[in-house]
Amino acid sequence: MPQLALLYGRAWAALFGQLRRPPRAVCIQMVHSRSQGTRDLSPQQMVVREKILDMVVSCFKRHGAKGLDTPAFELKEMLTEKYGEDSGLIYDLKDQGGELLSLRYDLTVPFARYLAMNKLKKMKRYHVGKVWRRESPTIVQGRYREFCQCDFDIAGQFDPMIPDAECLKIICEILSGLQLGDFLIKVNDRRILDGMFAVCGVPESKFHAICSSIDKLDKISWKDVRHEMVAKKGLAPEVADQIGDYVQCHGGVSLVEQMFQDPRLSQNKQALEGLGDLKLLFEYLTLFGIAEKISFDLSLARGLDYYTGVIYEAVLLQTPAQAEEEPLNVGSVAAGGRYDGLVGMFDPKGHKVPCVGLSIGVERIFSIVEQRMKTFGEKVRTTETQVFVATPQKNFLQERLKLIAELWDAGIKAELLYKNNPKLLTQLHYCENTGIPLVVIIGEQELKEGVIKLRLVASREEVAIKRENLVAEIQKRLSES
Amino acid sequence: MPQLALLYGRAWAALFGQLRRPPRAVCIQMVHSRSQGTRDLSPQQMVVREKILDMVVSCFKRHGAKGLDTPAFELKEMLTEKYGEDSGLIYDLKDQGGELLSLRYDLTVPFARYLAMNKLKKMKRYHVGKVWRRESPTIVQGRYREFCQCDFDIAGQFDPMIPDAECLKIICEILSGLQLGDFLIKVNDRRILDGMFAVCGVPESKFHAICSSIDKLDKISWKDVRHEMVAKKGLAPEVADQIGDYVQCHGGVSLVEQMFQDPRLSQNKQALEGLGDLKLLFEYLTLFGIAEKISFDLSLARGLDYYTGVIYEAVLLQTPAQAEEEPLNVGSVAAGGRYDGLVGMFDPKGHKVPCVGLSIGVERIFSIVEQRMKTFGEKVRTTETQVFVATPQKNFLQERLKLIAELWDAGIKAELLYKNNPKLLTQLHYCENTGIPLVVIIGEQELKEGVIKLRLVASREEVAIKRENLVAEIQKRLSES
Repeated sequence: MPQLALLYGRAWAALFGQLRRPPRAVCIQMVHSRSQGTRDLSPQQMVVREKILDMVVSCFKRHGAKGLDTPAFELKEMLTEKYGEDSGLIYDLKDQGGELLSLRYDLTVPFARYLAMNKLKKMKRYHVGKVWRRESPTIVQGRYREFCQCDFDIAGQFDPMIPDAECLKIICEILSGLQLGDFLIKVNDRRILDGMFAVCGVPESKFHAICSSIDKLDKISWKDVRHEMVAKKGLAPEVADQIGDYVQCHGGVSLVEQMFQDPRLSQNKQALEGLGDLKLLFEYLTLFGIAEKISFDLSLARGLDYYTGVIYEAVLLQTPAQAEEEPLNVGSVAAGGRYDGLVGMFDPKGHKVPCVGLSIGVERIFSIVEQRMKTFGEKVRTTETQVFVATPQKNFLQERLKLIAELWDAGIKAELLYKNNPKLLTQLHYCENTGIPLVVIIGEQELKEGVIKLRLVASREEVAIKRENLVAEIQKRLSES
Repeated sequence: MPQLALLYGRAWAALFGQLRRPPRAVCIQMVHSRSQGTRDLSPQQMVVREKILDMVVSCFKRHGAKGLDTPAFELKEMLTEKYGEDSGLIYDLKDQGGELLSLRYDLTVPFARYLAMNKLKKMKRYHVGKVWRRESPTIVQGRYREFCQCDFDIAGQFDPMIPDAECLKIICEILSGLQLGDFLIKVNDRRILDGMFAVCGVPESKFHAICSSIDKLDKISWKDVRHEMVAKKGLAPEVADQIGDYVQCHGGVSLVEQMFQDPRLSQNKQALEGLGDLKLLFEYLTLFGIAEKISFDLSLARGLDYYTGVIYEAVLLQTPAQAEEEPLNVGSVAAGGRYDGLVGMFDPKGHKVPCVGLSIGVERIFSIVEQRMKTFGEKVRTTETQVFVATPQKNFLQERLKLIAELWDAGIKAELLYKNNPKLLTQLHYCENTGIPLVVIIGEQELKEGVIKLRLVASREEVAIKRENLVAEIQKRLSES
């Protein structure tokens, strides 16, 4: 990953222009003319995103994944009963005749639908695309109604925990590569959660609801979660308290061993299966050299209904902010898990295809990087133009047009001002402001002598070059820089 | 554009795996579980698309464009009265409380909205994104309800026809670069059309409606268009016939000169303005070396309401199919024009920002390339894996996992089978089937000797390499190939 060194380095700051945010007044006026909770991505933001997405996708490709794309909308019925309490956040399309449609809520359900529809028994794919959720628009917290997801999933019947371990390895590679600071991946298993609920005395009909409550532990306190379980979901207080004892536990592989000895959990078949898999997972993670990044955490629940086995969520251990930065609440930066039943829900005969996958929280990562660039005053160049075609004289548009066409045809990135008679100073300022490194200057003198003046913007050095050697000379200088 | 040579070359065929389409039976079953008129893009299609989009975007960047992204949906009112007769094809979102929203219909209206909202007076941007239209799903003709658009636009007040000429240059560069066969760009001007309507006696209130009819001339005959204008749109037959005389005219710059002399058109101020601009445009196109690709065509109308000046549309001159291919009706492969009034429609004070732009018909281009690959049996590799980690022995999973983590950490693209004890033959077949060029083999013997066997899949040659030199050796071989 050779570009990584550039991301926060001086080289980057030197190469690119200023990253700007619109002033607040403009943001308020925007509400009149753009949908709430959505935003445009400016050229500055696009450059940052492109770099981060390139790194994420190159990691997915390093692990042998194929690309896949699915439509923005699915049949409404395809999305129902997949997302638990969050289903109310699905965007529906208006019934304009024909089918009832909804915008996709994630990339996992469309992947499962694709596998079932094409009767695929295995596939390792990545998918980068937008998803839509009708969240209350609390943009200050970085939650948008349209956002980008980057998913990697492995479908197929394989020996236990090998693909699962690879998913955790991928999360580690991406988070390390992006240099976001120290991180930890919390791991748990739905079967351990279900076993825990069972031995604590939660009625089976309430497993999903209680699971959703537990999922909020990273945002609200145990006291509030307990209140929700008891007051809103009708759980007996003593049952809630037993759960409370478990969800405080987190640790490494030794906690797995400890839970094997737990007098109640060890009586539950499901929990034992989950613990057995976690033990194997830790073995593989040690071989991958990432075991110290992983924490078995009984409070990790993941709200989505479709998980069936191991689940995980990566969190940054410190705010990436330096002391002088505003703190940024970013939540989890990657998450995923095993969902062995989802594909079967789309198959007419219910044939199952076991799956495990992960989603990188790129929107949160974009926010962190943008915030960091703002703090450090890092600059970003929004165009890649290499050469500017200028003239000091009037009535030289024709020569400029001929010259620039020659550069374009040679694959050189070039611009000129769309004016018949621009001032030389205006032209040179444009290069300095936009970071164009080279200027070719053509005037009467040059035309007569059959040469072109080549100016290096940084040093203001100028050299005369034979017109016929210009393209070769530019290509040589660009390949050297 | 060095990759271009690869696109249809033997090198590509050798590097990549088979491009497959699902059998017909599967397509029919799909209707049950995916929205009509949409489709999934398979890994094979994604590879082809990625290559084509890379070429298109690199051309946009060569011309100094910045990237921009806008949300998939806009406020419904933003899209009304922009698309003429096609407005009925806009997808609306269901009213779930809050604003009334619609899916974007193109990328031009969101761009104009962005400029107005941010009070930008100039910008050169490209945008690659999906748009949605409720077309009747005639998938055989390659029309989908979700499709990708690739737009390049120049906003700002500049000297006449310089940006317009650059847009036509870009279309030429892209179509030439993609080697789709010979093409022609039809050019006209809305002011010439309006002038023509005026001198023929079309009431001004019918200009837009008649323009929409003319726009159909590439799909239906003059007789049918005439019928629509007279019977459905209430135009006097003699007026229709006068229009009929004009719309048969097409030619080069000499036709522009001829129209300047036309006794009726030359009396119309608007038409004269349009002709004057076209004359200047041809001058610049000659300097760009592309004038012979351009045809002034009075039948070109472009249905969208927002065009105000020059309009253009590129068509392939021959079906790209060889004799043995099925003919493929592809229609236009690029189009665009000038729209000087659109930004003002979004500005509270009506401030105008003149714009000109183009859209590459990438979906049609994808179809052509896929069809061509099918005909020539060209193959496409859907993963980029460089090295496969194999073992001939049982109980070697631990060693394989340690080894592959080392490769991943060195940035090498690597895979293994997710099995505890896979057969060696299965592992080698996997490499041959998926096109992985290198295999590293570790067994008891190698472990004892501190070496790894490196196998070249193509030649089946095997060499022993010291374990500590493995990464360096692989990187050397990959950089050489």
